[in-house]
Amino acid sequence: MQRRSFLKKASLGAVAGSAAVAAPVFAQDAPTLNWRMPTSFPRSLEALYGVGELMCRYIGEATGGKFNIRPFPGGEIVPALQVLDSVQNGTVECGQTVSYYYYGKDPTLCFDAAVPFGLNARQMNAWMFQGDGMKLTREMFKAYNIVNFPMGNTGVQMGGWFRNEIKSVEDLKGLKMRTAGFAGEVLSRMGVVPQQLAGGDVYPALEKGTLDAVEFVGPYDDEKLGFNKVARNYYYPGWWEGGPQISLYVNEKSWEALPKSYQAVIETASRLALVETLSRYDAWNAPALRRLIANGAQLRAFPREVMDASWDAANAVYKEFSDRDPKFKAMYDNYMSFRDSSVPWFRAAEGAYDQYLSAALSRAR
Amino acid sequence: MQRRSFLKKASLGAVAGSAAVAAPVFAQDAPTLNWRMPTSFPRSLEALYGVGELMCRYIGEATGGKFNIRPFPGGEIVPALQVLDSVQNGTVECGQTVSYYYYGKDPTLCFDAAVPFGLNARQMNAWMFQGDGMKLTREMFKAYNIVNFPMGNTGVQMGGWFRNEIKSVEDLKGLKMRTAGFAGEVLSRMGVVPQQLAGGDVYPALEKGTLDAVEFVGPYDDEKLGFNKVARNYYYPGWWEGGPQISLYVNEKSWEALPKSYQAVIETASRLALVETLSRYDAWNAPALRRLIANGAQLRAFPREVMDASWDAANAVYKEFSDRDPKFKAMYDNYMSFRDSSVPWFRAAEGAYDQYLSAALSRAR
Repeated sequence: MQRRSFLKKASLGAVAGSAAVAAPVFAQDAPTLNWRMPTSFPRSLEALYGVGELMCRYIGEATGGKFNIRPFPGGEIVPALQVLDSVQNGTVECGQTVSYYYYGKDPTLCFDAAVPFGLNARQMNAWMFQGDGMKLTREMFKAYNIVNFPMGNTGVQMGGWFRNEIKSVEDLKGLKMRTAGFAGEVLSRMGVVPQQLAGGDVYPALEKGTLDAVEFVGPYDDEKLGFNKVARNYYYPGWWEGGPQISLYVNEKSWEALPKSYQAVIETASRLALVETLSRYDAWNAPALRRLIANGAQLRAFPREVMDASWDAANAVYKEFSDRDPKFKAMYDNYMSFRDSSVPWFRAAEGAYDQYLSAALSRAR
Repeated sequence: MQRRSFLKKASLGAVAGSAAVAAPVFAQDAPTLNWRMPTSFPRSLEALYGVGELMCRYIGEATGGKFNIRPFPGGEIVPALQVLDSVQNGTVECGQTVSYYYYGKDPTLCFDAAVPFGLNARQMNAWMFQGDGMKLTREMFKAYNIVNFPMGNTGVQMGGWFRNEIKSVEDLKGLKMRTAGFAGEVLSRMGVVPQQLAGGDVYPALEKGTLDAVEFVGPYDDEKLGFNKVARNYYYPGWWEGGPQISLYVNEKSWEALPKSYQAVIETASRLALVETLSRYDAWNAPALRRLIANGAQLRAFPREVMDASWDAANAVYKEFSDRDPKFKAMYDNYMSFRDSSVPWFRAAEGAYDQYLSAALSRAR
């Protein structure tokens, strides 16, 4: 430290009196930093953990190797679902996670990730960066000493794998399904019995019949876990996850201690991660879905009756939560009014375009 | 220069012998650079020109103010549609533009932006970053001494403003429409007479009746130009622009002369711009469309017959271009096979989700 301080003064002295010379980068402006970034994901999730690694690589490169952030798979230095706590406490400087994992602390946190019948991936970006999303989530995370950055989105997830066909709301009754958080709350209103299981325990439970259904992510991630061998009915859409956002949490003190240039690097690199995550899912889900279908998966849409009952159940939960918690209500109102304003535009141009292409390609086959 | 060289040696001397000290950033690693970035856009297009400005600001911040890129509105230092040429010649170091403006040089360039019935915004990112898009477009731009970076997407554009209703393909015959490039080529096969007009001339031509129709961008940009006062029929979707990508062109020599850290900063900042552009359009188009409708615009979908005829005309043009140009064919085949592979996945989860939300919200009103 003393050495760096000396260098700084020496440089300042040398520059003084010459306004024309290119300003040197002072040691204090570009400190060497080594941060740790626990994540909530196993190494095998290349669109989540893999993108975290990529972001760290870019941050290192952009700072000439001086700002090093090392990612860790879930459970390695911090339990997968305690990333928020460890960043909040300053045990680590930052973490990569999904805010709906912390539903138990406060359901309002889910608006930083996904809520039932919420925004799709593009609408989420629009709300975060152009609507009030960044402002409101930053205010919310202040209570956790966290500065949050969107750093990924999975797109709409699948509704999951079901041993038996779901033909009506009746078929959901008593169904033991691996799901949690907000989705679990809403599904339980329709008779589903939500089960919270760690990733590795899901397949055996499904095989043994302890579970009747499981929702995980989408074709690309699901394929690796082999659910299609046990539960062939693959339902869409995952109405509880229209565009789940992945977040970078940075400890507030760590953030404030960063030079402005490193802050800008985090901001831009997290946006690269955001594009990268969604583009990986969008590119990789399509062929994975084809392979799953070739291997016996039955692709099915939830019946309209089930969707309508889910919609009603979700709105009932929203009303309850809003009635009892003004902070939830304020976030909910802002988020949903953005959704309600966006959907008609997306239905017109985007919807018509996508639907026409889909119909034309089916016809051309 | 001599001064900087002296500083560098002095720093090296001071550091020698102390491995523990934080490595200083040497002047040669972080040179002060001043670049110019002509764009193809007027200042008024905040989601295009405005995002270019924002990207430059981030690049400056991330490099501690040392890498300065100054944006210029179209026509200020380079004509709006000659950005490619000026970057190619090294007149400027970089530029912000849309590759389909250079359809006249080579229609294959359009695959870096949008082609009729091509990829939507998310599919475009997926093809660029996970498919062969970056590789193939980089190869293509080598002939122009350009290194390209996606830095924006408008989402699906509108089909444009028509004085009269379009009820059949017959209604397109002889229609004088402001459009150009690939869209113009396809539309001309259906009897449209494409007219190329600079932005400022469009409104008067429409008012006088010299033009029967005009396509520009989407609700947010269109609203400012006041087309709805003259041509009330506002059609969707712009099937010739499913997800037009905005590009940053960097002169190859300028790129290669950059330190690795500045290259990483350009890469990440261009991705921030990509997210920013699309999120601005997605957020701003929705309320603009509502205002336009409140002010008399008649929102209409192109009839299925017109869409089908457009689809056939586009495919006929694709076949002609592919037959006569193997380079076009190679790009076309790669791009379209990505589209054909992606669409079924997007139809399932994303499509079902968006459509359900849209229906549920209409019902709830």
